[in-house]
Amino acid sequence: MKSNDKRNDIVKPAKISGFPENLPAEERLFRQMMSVIQKKFESHGAEFIETPAVEANGVLLSKGADDKEIFGLHQLNGNGDTGKKYSLHFDLTVPLARYVAQHYSRLAFPFKRAQIQKVWRGERPQDGRFREFYQCDIDIIGDGDLSLLADAEVPSIMFDILRDLNIGKFVFRINNRKILNGYLRHLEIVNDLYKPVLIELDKIDKIGADRVCANLVALGMSESDVQHLIETCRFSGTNAEKIAMLRAKEVEEELYRQGVEELETVTSLMQDMGVTEEFVEIDLSIVRGLGYYSGTVYETYLVKHMELGSICSGGRYDNLAEKFTDRHLPGVGMSIGLTRLFSRLLKSGLLPANQVGAADVMVAMVDKDHFQSYVNIAAHLRHHGLRTEVYLDECKLGQQLRYADKKQIPLVVIGGACELDDDAVQLKNMRTGTQEAVTCDGLVAAIREELALMAKRNSGVLWGQAAA
Amino acid sequence: MKSNDKRNDIVKPAKISGFPENLPAEERLFRQMMSVIQKKFESHGAEFIETPAVEANGVLLSKGADDKEIFGLHQLNGNGDTGKKYSLHFDLTVPLARYVAQHYSRLAFPFKRAQIQKVWRGERPQDGRFREFYQCDIDIIGDGDLSLLADAEVPSIMFDILRDLNIGKFVFRINNRKILNGYLRHLEIVNDLYKPVLIELDKIDKIGADRVCANLVALGMSESDVQHLIETCRFSGTNAEKIAMLRAKEVEEELYRQGVEELETVTSLMQDMGVTEEFVEIDLSIVRGLGYYSGTVYETYLVKHMELGSICSGGRYDNLAEKFTDRHLPGVGMSIGLTRLFSRLLKSGLLPANQVGAADVMVAMVDKDHFQSYVNIAAHLRHHGLRTEVYLDECKLGQQLRYADKKQIPLVVIGGACELDDDAVQLKNMRTGTQEAVTCDGLVAAIREELALMAKRNSGVLWGQAAA
Repeated sequence: MKSNDKRNDIVKPAKISGFPENLPAEERLFRQMMSVIQKKFESHGAEFIETPAVEANGVLLSKGADDKEIFGLHQLNGNGDTGKKYSLHFDLTVPLARYVAQHYSRLAFPFKRAQIQKVWRGERPQDGRFREFYQCDIDIIGDGDLSLLADAEVPSIMFDILRDLNIGKFVFRINNRKILNGYLRHLEIVNDLYKPVLIELDKIDKIGADRVCANLVALGMSESDVQHLIETCRFSGTNAEKIAMLRAKEVEEELYRQGVEELETVTSLMQDMGVTEEFVEIDLSIVRGLGYYSGTVYETYLVKHMELGSICSGGRYDNLAEKFTDRHLPGVGMSIGLTRLFSRLLKSGLLPANQVGAADVMVAMVDKDHFQSYVNIAAHLRHHGLRTEVYLDECKLGQQLRYADKKQIPLVVIGGACELDDDAVQLKNMRTGTQEAVTCDGLVAAIREELALMAKRNSGVLWGQAAA
Repeated sequence: MKSNDKRNDIVKPAKISGFPENLPAEERLFRQMMSVIQKKFESHGAEFIETPAVEANGVLLSKGADDKEIFGLHQLNGNGDTGKKYSLHFDLTVPLARYVAQHYSRLAFPFKRAQIQKVWRGERPQDGRFREFYQCDIDIIGDGDLSLLADAEVPSIMFDILRDLNIGKFVFRINNRKILNGYLRHLEIVNDLYKPVLIELDKIDKIGADRVCANLVALGMSESDVQHLIETCRFSGTNAEKIAMLRAKEVEEELYRQGVEELETVTSLMQDMGVTEEFVEIDLSIVRGLGYYSGTVYETYLVKHMELGSICSGGRYDNLAEKFTDRHLPGVGMSIGLTRLFSRLLKSGLLPANQVGAADVMVAMVDKDHFQSYVNIAAHLRHHGLRTEVYLDECKLGQQLRYADKKQIPLVVIGGACELDDDAVQLKNMRTGTQEAVTCDGLVAAIREELALMAKRNSGVLWGQAAA
């Protein structure tokens, strides 16, 4: 209903760019994806934690943190000076480090922690970059040391998740930072060059091996060293052949040897944990987040949609919380950037139209005098686990059905004076348009049957069209 | 493991006061409460939405908003001027108004929306006041008009939730703003006095009727008017007696009559929807949020713990989004301040020690050589819906059991070379300390039986000790 008076004081209702929000139907899909992730984390015995969105600047800021990307807080019209000590977290790893250091004595180690929360980054919103987005993290933190089993378990949990999300064939690309670092040490590259060299290697996919070679030579490496390095990174073959190639090299550097052994062990343990070989590809060019990782590193790609980039990444780090404690806490973790993944799948048409309605069934309000019956039917259906709503006003049936349709509710109960134990109602299937008479006694069974049929028709379709 | 080197550069790991976080065991309880709320919202066909944590200042600020309580955002080391246009939302109602106005044409009305998100308020943290907390809101928004059925449905959904949370006997206190407003109009109180009078009436419980009377006289009301007013608000009797008392008054004011009728209708509809009379108390002294509400208003109390204050409140409002659209969008909603409720229940000992472990069962790592078997057992158990973790290192069984205990995992599978189809394992119940041999074939059934027994022992205890 629109009023006739034109007003000038209306604020244009708009959310800010880079801060995404979904319409209800998309939100149902998003929540379904999130629920899969959550349930899988739980099914592997991960402890969920939630940290405040806000941390002290002293906690968030450290060498290497880009403080231009951090949103600081102040109180509007408050005292500016006292108010500017806090900021929104920009990832879940710094808060995890603070949490583990602060609550150390109350945690069970290895601490397998799951955390699904929004993070904020003050960057300019541009193609697919969000300023507010969900991260779904799982990390395992050891007290003093941490078995390589953890390096295999983390991707095996992600394997379960990605398989259940059913968004198509995926592959983990895995490497070990010690191999490259050891190899650079073996080549007697000076320490200062490690970072620029790694940055260049990371560009092979983007700018091609030739330009990377030229850049590396420009950095001061010898042509033959560059040749060896690039050949090693780009060696193609099976995982076993890659390991054999690495082993065959005459590199005595202990770090290198250790990296190769760890890489072999972790890929083998991943297989023990059910991640079959077709899902794991050793990729010696993977570098990831320059300073942070110290051992295993992972990226994950949708095989038919490499253009989406890595959808799930992470790695092993030496010491989680050295800023907050002198305890040695090594860890390994992976993260799904859910908002970005969801948005890209949606944009690329890799998510099907939503099949999950806002309810399983709606009870139409045919005659307000029988309101009590409708409410009783709904309570009865809910009691049997069916999400049920009663249409809340007496209006034309057509309008009520349009409402159900808009909420993607697949079934509508239409009855006049139905009581639960006598009489019959009509059960309308909104997807097929068919309608059948059902006794109230048989209503739950009839609804379950219709829902099961629909689920069967949609089997593998809900997320599966993405896989086609 | 603690290093021997003392360091001076350690940042003390501490979260900021007013920004709560839970240890893992508390977090499991918190998530369980939230899950009950979420599932009940879903079971009634509510559409979940999530809005960004951040809105433009122009959206958040309006006449009446206390901008001292709002956290503004700026980019650390960014351009201060361009960065100060956004703030964190302080409730979920302003974002809902913006959302409904912005996406109006894509929504199904009446729009029954659920929203569970954190909100932020820049107030000083003091006894139980949080600066970051969860709100769990449900609102029904009409397009043009909205049936009183919505005023009954909202508390009926909350009724389902509070009953399932099992935190003790509760009562809805319900009133209708039109009654008091109409009555004040009838007494020919000038408009300017409405607000101060309502503020005084709201204090009856705190400072007593006598002082409120004195204050009202001081405001300029006649002693007899004050007497009538207070008597009306404090009239004691059944709901029917209160309605009869209101009807019997010689007040011709239309607004008053309408309020009485609405109040009677809504309480009666609530009964139709299963909220039996013992859970509903008409309370004519309830005012709530002075400017906002225009009809039905609700508060909710735990009968044996009135000191906790209202745990679930709300009401009917005339026009949700008048700031953003010239469409007339009346609504009604209620909200649970979950962080505050949880914290108070926990502090008052009204939540029992957590009974829900981080997993249902742990598979001990007795012999690393049989790692593959342990992993297979775990996958098998997970396949049957059991949350299962494998202890990730080979160490003394005692240490592994302490780990399970710390994570409140109730069952541990202990086996040497168990394969799934032969041999037997030991199933240890961590709660009773007993241990039994189980064949691998019978493991799922044995675990389910143990869990069912525990659930039975805990029946009504998980939240139920609160009710005692």
